[in-house]
Amino acid sequence: MKSRKPLKRKDIGLAPGTAVYMGKKTEKDLYVEIFDYNHETLKEERTDNVKDIFSYEDKNNVTWININGLNNVEDIKELGNHYELHPLLIEDIVNTHQRPKLDEYEDYVFVVLKMLHFDNQNNLKIEHVSFVLGKDYMLSFQESEGDVFEPIRDRLRTSKGVVRKMGADYLLYALIDVIVDNYFVLIDNLSEKTEILEDSLFNTSKNNQTAFEIQNFKREILKIRRAVYPLREVVSGLNKVDTTLVKEKTHLYLGDLHDHIIQVSENIDIYREIIWGLMDMHLTTLSNKMNEVMKVLTIIATIFIPLTFIAGIYGMNFENIPELKYKYAYYTLWGVMILIFLGMLYYFKRKKWL
Amino acid sequence: MKSRKPLKRKDIGLAPGTAVYMGKKTEKDLYVEIFDYNHETLKEERTDNVKDIFSYEDKNNVTWININGLNNVEDIKELGNHYELHPLLIEDIVNTHQRPKLDEYEDYVFVVLKMLHFDNQNNLKIEHVSFVLGKDYMLSFQESEGDVFEPIRDRLRTSKGVVRKMGADYLLYALIDVIVDNYFVLIDNLSEKTEILEDSLFNTSKNNQTAFEIQNFKREILKIRRAVYPLREVVSGLNKVDTTLVKEKTHLYLGDLHDHIIQVSENIDIYREIIWGLMDMHLTTLSNKMNEVMKVLTIIATIFIPLTFIAGIYGMNFENIPELKYKYAYYTLWGVMILIFLGMLYYFKRKKWL
Amino acid sequence: MKSRKPLKRKDIGLAPGTAVYMGKKTEKDLYVEIFDYNHETLKEERTDNVKDIFSYEDKNNVTWININGLNNVEDIKELGNHYELHPLLIEDIVNTHQRPKLDEYEDYVFVVLKMLHFDNQNNLKIEHVSFVLGKDYMLSFQESEGDVFEPIRDRLRTSKGVVRKMGADYLLYALIDVIVDNYFVLIDNLSEKTEILEDSLFNTSKNNQTAFEIQNFKREILKIRRAVYPLREVVSGLNKVDTTLVKEKTHLYLGDLHDHIIQVSENIDIYREIIWGLMDMHLTTLSNKMNEVMKVLTIIATIFIPLTFIAGIYGMNFENIPELKYKYAYYTLWGVMILIFLGMLYYFKRKKWL
Amino acid sequence: MKSRKPLKRKDIGLAPGTAVYMGKKTEKDLYVEIFDYNHETLKEERTDNVKDIFSYEDKNNVTWININGLNNVEDIKELGNHYELHPLLIEDIVNTHQRPKLDEYEDYVFVVLKMLHFDNQNNLKIEHVSFVLGKDYMLSFQESEGDVFEPIRDRLRTSKGVVRKMGADYLLYALIDVIVDNYFVLIDNLSEKTEILEDSLFNTSKNNQTAFEIQNFKREILKIRRAVYPLREVVSGLNKVDTTLVKEKTHLYLGDLHDHIIQVSENIDIYREIIWGLMDMHLTTLSNKMNEVMKVLTIIATIFIPLTFIAGIYGMNFENIPELKYKYAYYTLWGVMILIFLGMLYYFKRKKWL
Amino acid sequence: MKSRKPLKRKDIGLAPGTAVYMGKKTEKDLYVEIFDYNHETLKEERTDNVKDIFSYEDKNNVTWININGLNNVEDIKELGNHYELHPLLIEDIVNTHQRPKLDEYEDYVFVVLKMLHFDNQNNLKIEHVSFVLGKDYMLSFQESEGDVFEPIRDRLRTSKGVVRKMGADYLLYALIDVIVDNYFVLIDNLSEKTEILEDSLFNTSKNNQTAFEIQNFKREILKIRRAVYPLREVVSGLNKVDTTLVKEKTHLYLGDLHDHIIQVSENIDIYREIIWGLMDMHLTTLSNKMNEVMKVLTIIATIFIPLTFIAGIYGMNFENIPELKYKYAYYTLWGVMILIFLGMLYYFKRKKWL
Repeated sequence: MKSRKPLKRKDIGLAPGTAVYMGKKTEKDLYVEIFDYNHETLKEERTDNVKDIFSYEDKNNVTWININGLNNVEDIKELGNHYELHPLLIEDIVNTHQRPKLDEYEDYVFVVLKMLHFDNQNNLKIEHVSFVLGKDYMLSFQESEGDVFEPIRDRLRTSKGVVRKMGADYLLYALIDVIVDNYFVLIDNLSEKTEILEDSLFNTSKNNQTAFEIQNFKREILKIRRAVYPLREVVSGLNKVDTTLVKEKTHLYLGDLHDHIIQVSENIDIYREIIWGLMDMHLTTLSNKMNEVMKVLTIIATIFIPLTFIAGIYGMNFENIPELKYKYAYYTLWGVMILIFLGMLYYFKRKKWL
Repeated sequence: MKSRKPLKRKDIGLAPGTAVYMGKKTEKDLYVEIFDYNHETLKEERTDNVKDIFSYEDKNNVTWININGLNNVEDIKELGNHYELHPLLIEDIVNTHQRPKLDEYEDYVFVVLKMLHFDNQNNLKIEHVSFVLGKDYMLSFQESEGDVFEPIRDRLRTSKGVVRKMGADYLLYALIDVIVDNYFVLIDNLSEKTEILEDSLFNTSKNNQTAFEIQNFKREILKIRRAVYPLREVVSGLNKVDTTLVKEKTHLYLGDLHDHIIQVSENIDIYREIIWGLMDMHLTTLSNKMNEVMKVLTIIATIFIPLTFIAGIYGMNFENIPELKYKYAYYTLWGVMILIFLGMLYYFKRKKWL
Repeated sequence: MKSRKPLKRKDIGLAPGTAVYMGKKTEKDLYVEIFDYNHETLKEERTDNVKDIFSYEDKNNVTWININGLNNVEDIKELGNHYELHPLLIEDIVNTHQRPKLDEYEDYVFVVLKMLHFDNQNNLKIEHVSFVLGKDYMLSFQESEGDVFEPIRDRLRTSKGVVRKMGADYLLYALIDVIVDNYFVLIDNLSEKTEILEDSLFNTSKNNQTAFEIQNFKREILKIRRAVYPLREVVSGLNKVDTTLVKEKTHLYLGDLHDHIIQVSENIDIYREIIWGLMDMHLTTLSNKMNEVMKVLTIIATIFIPLTFIAGIYGMNFENIPELKYKYAYYTLWGVMILIFLGMLYYFKRKKWL
Repeated sequence: MKSRKPLKRKDIGLAPGTAVYMGKKTEKDLYVEIFDYNHETLKEERTDNVKDIFSYEDKNNVTWININGLNNVEDIKELGNHYELHPLLIEDIVNTHQRPKLDEYEDYVFVVLKMLHFDNQNNLKIEHVSFVLGKDYMLSFQESEGDVFEPIRDRLRTSKGVVRKMGADYLLYALIDVIVDNYFVLIDNLSEKTEILEDSLFNTSKNNQTAFEIQNFKREILKIRRAVYPLREVVSGLNKVDTTLVKEKTHLYLGDLHDHIIQVSENIDIYREIIWGLMDMHLTTLSNKMNEVMKVLTIIATIFIPLTFIAGIYGMNFENIPELKYKYAYYTLWGVMILIFLGMLYYFKRKKWL
Repeated sequence: MKSRKPLKRKDIGLAPGTAVYMGKKTEKDLYVEIFDYNHETLKEERTDNVKDIFSYEDKNNVTWININGLNNVEDIKELGNHYELHPLLIEDIVNTHQRPKLDEYEDYVFVVLKMLHFDNQNNLKIEHVSFVLGKDYMLSFQESEGDVFEPIRDRLRTSKGVVRKMGADYLLYALIDVIVDNYFVLIDNLSEKTEILEDSLFNTSKNNQTAFEIQNFKREILKIRRAVYPLREVVSGLNKVDTTLVKEKTHLYLGDLHDHIIQVSENIDIYREIIWGLMDMHLTTLSNKMNEVMKVLTIIATIFIPLTFIAGIYGMNFENIPELKYKYAYYTLWGVMILIFLGMLYYFKRKKWL
């Protein structure tokens, strides 16, 4: 439970447009990847200096600038100045708590979304990603190194598919598409986790923890939902953006992407309903176990308490208890007791307690 | 629980429009059924070679091409090229995780839906079916052999009903109609399963499993709902399609079909609510049984514990216990004990525990 | 639970427009009532022969033809041919699973709804009723004899109210109105059943059944809801129908009717919420009883187990137990035991267990 | 539970527009209050004779006619004839089950709403009130004497506020406003009742009743909601009424009123959620108590059952039990028993059962 | 639970527009802060006399008048007269129960919202704040001293950010923004409280209280939701206000603010779902504990009751019990008892009760 990140905003009362990085501070500098390409040529560069970017000005090429690390707010501001980005937009790039959204500015479109994956300890990791789509360039901003864009880079390098023949809008589509593709991995993981939880409900030993695991699972699904749901509006919004930025040819692809996001959302909702049901299942499982425990107790007590009573009777010290003197009284009593015992067994059998 | 199919997508990062079959790989080749007909004539053919299709070009006839098996992606691509189908469409034909939808392209309409049935082990089976409706042809794609279209084939052969007099749009309607008709069988099955579950709630022996069966049932209903709900939009969307593809005469039939789908949806929702209630019922049933068990224990213990105590008293070895020497003390004590016993019985009777 | 009617459709794969009666087959023939009237005259006839209807052609009169019994599909088809009814419409007349709806055809309006009542065994009965409203005629179709239309027949015969002065549309309104009026009786019945169920929750004897009764009640309410909810659209749809069929004068009445249906719907929703709460109540009631049972057990056990232990102590056969030889030891012990007993009682009193 | 009024409609099958009073029949006659006023003068009259009303015809004055008692349907019909009220409207005035609504007729607007209060026994009382707003008159109809309009009468008499300067529409607003103001008292009452219920959940003695009280409270809230919710549409509808009846100057006031009604609705929803939660709380409270009871039983039984067993051992009559002859055996045994006792106590302490 | 403020309205039946202060009466007078500024100059004043305000008339400056304390209704009315505020608006300023809303008047816009924070005792405090935005002035009204506006005052004084360069509309935005920023602190607090509650569910000692804490937490979240939800409409409404009051330049900022409010709402909804789940968790935790208690009881009872029975057998006083005379009978019996004991342990081990 310690992994929950508080929502503390570090900028209460600061002037709007003041960019403050909300994520984990690390020592690492930001670094930039540049892909400058058209149908025929491709130039790939990697640099630590933001100023290197500003030389890519060829209007005939599409320029993809991928910034890694949001730590260095100053560099990002410099970049923002060069591309004339609005201060509020800069603020949203570094504000890792920003929910997915689409903002349409005059000369560019701004898209925020979340990259989701489970880490090795099976904890949900949410990475903040934002895109600025201009006429012939596309900026992408990531919190940290490591992403899911490798297939796109490959396609760019090998000119596989149509990506090199289309504009920056198609590149944006391709990047969101690969992020959404990874949501499906997430869904698989949810499916697996649900199965594990259901199996652990059978397991009697670690009951108390199960309730907390279910509750944590609920929390995770709520977080995922919050990251995925607004994406539907984002993508359908992209189709309504001014056509000089998002060309009509791309609409069909965005429609397909929209479809995928709805599919992810539906799956999330299904797992949500299933997990909500798990707590009820847990409760009935507990009741079942209690029933079992109580039956054992009841059977033992119901059989032996009357027998002990009978033994108690003949343990009394009255001077005049005639039975005590009969020769076979002891054996007779044993017979009676065994009969009672068998009768009880039969009764429990008929009640299906045994 | 092992039958749950993971949602693993095999194409993460692949270029959009790359067709990858998601279903179970089988050795079987695809095969094609062709019905080429008009009001007067009907030609029926069955072939393994996709190229055989391309000869059916008579614009006065309606051509129904039914492709079985989505394994052979190459053949489907070839078909797609012939009919100038969009790559994204081809991708959706073979992507068995695609949810039901209607896509309108310039020259044809693309429809995806799900064929649902319970197999012999009473597990839900979902088969992915897609249709491409062109001006004078209708392509249908199925995952595997075996379908519910036999009545339509019969009607085509015998020219029963109006199917031979109408266009390809009516044929599409007729095929969807027969699929939806089969949903009603599904609903009957749900009804039956609910009854069985309710009856098993009465059954004391296999409680623990019941909770898991209810949970599995929930999961099934959620899956069915996901397959059926989007169909409403699909069918009402067909009525808004360009009238050169879906003629006005067919609208009335589609309206009727839409009605049936709503009826199925309503039934699913009702069973959903009923099954959601079953877990609560299960819990109260368990509580009831616990109550019963506890009552037995309490009655036995409450009667015999005091009696045993009395017997214990007169089992003490004090030298001076005057009662021990009375001649009829033993019999008196028996009397007292029987009175206590009867009093207890009366008390439990009045409390309605017996 | 045996009364649940499976949803089995008998016409899977049949050509659309094939009329198949879904209800219970009975031997009875259909019979027809005819009311042919205008402001001044009224002719009432009852016949078994559908062809008798075809003579009522006077355009100045309103003709109400009430068909009882949907068994005889052929007769209904003949009627349909005479009035040029669409085959899909005929199918819906005899398909008793059809949900309430309004279909507007060129020359007539088709309305389906449900007559609801509880029978003597307090089981919900749903009867399928459909109406065809033409320019100067109104056809009504019922599953079986026996209906709620008697007051309308009386008003027609005695010319009470405005029914004889208005057209066929007003007659349709009047018939739906009387059906909806009877829904209120249903609501009263729901109210009564709820009270009985709540009272039975107090009753300890037949707990296990209560859960099943609540579940069955839920099911009934879901069915009623499904019959009543779509009616709102039907009636508000009637107001939007071409005014040659439904005159403006009737709109005010239909508005009032719409209002009544909303009132019924609201009541159903309230009973739904109340009954959903009953299961929770049942569970708490069971918990309460368990508490009571456990308290009795605990009180008895807690009092007598320690006392029995003490008696056990002095039942031991050690040679050297000094207390055994004291003269008043026995009496002292009784005193101690009574003190312990009273102390326990006081403790339970303070804990409010007694 | 006996106070629930069945919804029995007394007019099933009657011709629409037939006015039947649904409320409790009382012997009392209706009586009428008349306020005829303009900016400068005010005439107040009270009469038992409906015909007295008809003399108030001055078009420059606003006439408020307040009818008390809906028993005397004939008088109300006479009034209706004079003001040319539609028969359906008359029916709604006396039909106390009519839900709140706004009906716009050609020359007047008809408003139905509910006056709510808790009576001395804390039972919810719902009184049916209806208004007819004409150009220069306003009719109000109440079930029985006693209302909340006194402050308005005072303002009319003393010409306080703007009421005398405005038209009949403002008077209607003022009357609805004072009714809505009283809803806030209702909300306070709900708040109080919730607190009492929560406190009684702490109280162990009368558990069983609590569940029924919660259920009854739910029922009350559902009734209140049904009376208040439709009011939102009524008031926002008044703002869209033809401006000859509701002047633009009044719109601002109606907007404010709409706001108040939304505030009431929100409060009702909050109490609804809270009360829905109470049943869960009740269940956990019961579980808590059960836990407590079980702990007491378990502690006592767990301590004394083993000790009694030991005492039983040395109560056996074997001839050769060496311990019995040791001199200090008895004292040693006491020591052992006390050690066991203390060990048990420590164990329970560590388990936090004590 | 005593801190719940009843909703008692003090003005039932008063004429609309009658201003009555609903909050806690305090002795303190109101005092006023004035900021009169433009791009170049700033004048700051603090006064107790409302009339001092009326001298700020420079149309080129923006005047922010911040009124603290709503006690002194007369002063506020005087202010209202000066600025020609509508009486209904004045009523809403002092009515602390007014929900957040936006009212557009001819010359000014009126905004109501809530300042939320948890006090030292971790109780939710809600403060009523309202704003009147005119062409070149902005009035703000607060219940009591102490607010969150200090950063804005600083920015005004130091001319940091753009606030001095923009109009009164931007100032309004900045003030709402800082209030919404503080909602995020609230969200953090909710997060913390949830964790504490979850931890206390582990804690066995103070169970009974936990249910009430959860219920109180629910209540708080409902209150917060009621304060935050309507804000969305308020802010999106500001963007639709006449552009002479809210300039287009400010729209972008308001869009950003709207985004933040949605983010807060989403978080509230998530905590709502989580807390609703806590009660279920509590119940399962209780069931778990009960299971544990019952297991201890059952193990002890099941082991010792049969053993005690055996001891009882040989405590009987029959004259002829052969075993009693065997020399090693006692030792044999001990052996048998130990075997039974071990067998029982093994049985419980296998059942995973130990």
